[in-house]
Amino acid sequence: MKADLDRLMAERGFDALVTTGPSANNPTMYYLANGVSVTEVTMLVKKRGQTPTLIVSSYERDEAAKSGLPVVERSKYDPVRLLNEERGDQLRANARLWEVVFADLDVRGTVALYGREEQGRALALANEVNARQSDVRVVGEFANTVFDAVWTTKDVDEVARIRSVGARTVGVVGNTAAFLSSHRAVDDVLVKKDGSPLTIGDVKREIRLWLAEADLEDPGGVIFAIGRDAGVPHSRGEDDQPIALGETIVYDISPREAGGGYYFDFTRTWCLGFAPPEIEKAYRDVLETFETILAEAKVNDLCRGLQQRVCQLLEARGHPTVRSDPRTNRGYVTSLGHGVGLNIHEHPFFSDYEGNVDTLAPGCIATIEPGLYYPDDGGFGIRIEDCLWMDPAMGRLENLADFSKELVLPVNNGV
Amino acid sequence: MKADLDRLMAERGFDALVTTGPSANNPTMYYLANGVSVTEVTMLVKKRGQTPTLIVSSYERDEAAKSGLPVVERSKYDPVRLLNEERGDQLRANARLWEVVFADLDVRGTVALYGREEQGRALALANEVNARQSDVRVVGEFANTVFDAVWTTKDVDEVARIRSVGARTVGVVGNTAAFLSSHRAVDDVLVKKDGSPLTIGDVKREIRLWLAEADLEDPGGVIFAIGRDAGVPHSRGEDDQPIALGETIVYDISPREAGGGYYFDFTRTWCLGFAPPEIEKAYRDVLETFETILAEAKVNDLCRGLQQRVCQLLEARGHPTVRSDPRTNRGYVTSLGHGVGLNIHEHPFFSDYEGNVDTLAPGCIATIEPGLYYPDDGGFGIRIEDCLWMDPAMGRLENLADFSKELVLPVNNGV
Repeated sequence: MKADLDRLMAERGFDALVTTGPSANNPTMYYLANGVSVTEVTMLVKKRGQTPTLIVSSYERDEAAKSGLPVVERSKYDPVRLLNEERGDQLRANARLWEVVFADLDVRGTVALYGREEQGRALALANEVNARQSDVRVVGEFANTVFDAVWTTKDVDEVARIRSVGARTVGVVGNTAAFLSSHRAVDDVLVKKDGSPLTIGDVKREIRLWLAEADLEDPGGVIFAIGRDAGVPHSRGEDDQPIALGETIVYDISPREAGGGYYFDFTRTWCLGFAPPEIEKAYRDVLETFETILAEAKVNDLCRGLQQRVCQLLEARGHPTVRSDPRTNRGYVTSLGHGVGLNIHEHPFFSDYEGNVDTLAPGCIATIEPGLYYPDDGGFGIRIEDCLWMDPAMGRLENLADFSKELVLPVNNGV
Repeated sequence: MKADLDRLMAERGFDALVTTGPSANNPTMYYLANGVSVTEVTMLVKKRGQTPTLIVSSYERDEAAKSGLPVVERSKYDPVRLLNEERGDQLRANARLWEVVFADLDVRGTVALYGREEQGRALALANEVNARQSDVRVVGEFANTVFDAVWTTKDVDEVARIRSVGARTVGVVGNTAAFLSSHRAVDDVLVKKDGSPLTIGDVKREIRLWLAEADLEDPGGVIFAIGRDAGVPHSRGEDDQPIALGETIVYDISPREAGGGYYFDFTRTWCLGFAPPEIEKAYRDVLETFETILAEAKVNDLCRGLQQRVCQLLEARGHPTVRSDPRTNRGYVTSLGHGVGLNIHEHPFFSDYEGNVDTLAPGCIATIEPGLYYPDDGGFGIRIEDCLWMDPAMGRLENLADFSKELVLPVNNGV
């Protein structure tokens, strides 16, 4: 939670932190600037123990003021004069701009750098600033950053926002189920009123409209993969493909608040009309595994331990896993889940390796998404994913948006 | 254009380039991976003169294959073993992964780094790789990168895609004009059927639906700012604000192909019902300036020269400009335009500083967007923006999506 930031900075010896870039698709800026809309040239400087200062283009002074933070217009530092003095050398002019900003805000010591930017640009600038300034050292964190740590647990407002995205997401999923069921099947594929096959592209188009109506955006795109394609975890489905009965559809949807903000992540697997026995059995294996994990998981459990447990459960049901064969593309081939917040994938992570100390900490939000993947010809894929909150008061995972886990969606076969 | 990449790499002494990260909101990856959908752990390595290799999660092998590039599954390099050997130290494990990849692909020498990533992470990793590997030096470009250069001019396919986004964008703008005009005004504000005021939030909601219907997404959000707010270039408009007659509305819309890809950028200024004389005069000043620039601009013109010319034209009409006062927030306070492509702002840039050598190169696509901003109480803003292509055959700017520049939108006043 944000309240932990100063303590974490102190533990790591950071006197200040800087994040740069737009608020869109840039979680550290969005988070510290309290979600206001600012563009590329923005810089946010936070000294340890102090409120951040937001340095913005004059164009954006009113938007920036909505953050509630102290705002400085970038023109105060006269960037055009610096550019002219450096004869158009952007790198030197920007390093000088940082010097002027740091002097103005009295920043010294170790400055940790964040923000999703072109990384070559970041590398060049950090090296230039460090070469010029003796009283500042710009450093980068590679993993388990202070933001990774503060984001691992959510405060009340964040839980409410993610819950709201979840409610709207399952609304879209419900629309999708009803839309599919409203079609009749001819020769085992869904058809439109004019008799032509309903395609994955048609379905995705409806989903995009429902998302927009629900004030959601979908930066990553929906996965709606059928049959053999569903057997590869991130295959997205081909737009021109018809929708056949009796094959698994993996429908994975991970929208975000419109205008940037918090994500949700959710998957259901459906068979239209009927499910062949092999798929029914595999689905039951995944669902039982899902329910066992949900029943067993408790606060502060080690996430890699849950990953081991899923492998054990699915191996006992006869499936290969990443534990029995680390390079398998068949059976259980993923990790069990991931945290969700301003990033679609964030801590806690569930991969099973030495040094993964992530836990189901009180207040974390994570997906649980066991699956089985058989990508061979005639193969199939299954994934069940809910998004859960470790309720600090109860010490148990609470599902943030419930939705039926029935495998078979009815259709009007041939009527 | 992409065909220039190897020449530019040679000129700058780059033996290879690496870009990392997802294809979403990461133009270098999207561009070199030919627009396929891949997520965070992706790495693309291009040796000079050779086809890039795409290294992806096994989950994404099928999506990655659609790029037409050679694809390597990341599991080949056994990242989990590396993590275990490094006892969970992500930085050392990743630096070793890069060593193994570089050895496998026979990459040596100067490697330029791109991709929109967390910049602290990039800084730490580049320094670690450089400290470990004697035969590779990872470097970053701060400005005027090889991608900035290749993106400055567009090939036929890119022009067609941006033109298509443009046609859909002005379709949405036309819907918006018709929607506003379909409302009646009571006491000089637009009202809904139930008599309550139509708000900016209501309008933006419709715009989001039209964008989704047109297969467009809107990562930056629409500007729909009225009256005094329109006088600040990037103020977005308040959702709860009613829409008054006789005030300027700056409506700036910059959508992108759904699922990531090419942007368009477009602005109109409207007054509902009527325009006061002061606004009519200022609008005419902007429109005449716009038309003069369009008539005068020719291939290879220096962009900063056009910026100087706009200042001259608007100063002659009695307005302060960034030339007459670099820190002014009144009058002409912006630069004239910017390139548009996979980035909403890219080269050519029009700012007037020494060393800005950007030109209207044959094949470039740029906005031209003069405006006037008077943010005082009772103030107003005006901006007219089209997106234009420097047609290499004609040597003249061609408007990629035409739309009326009438200031006044009629409404049913009081009927």
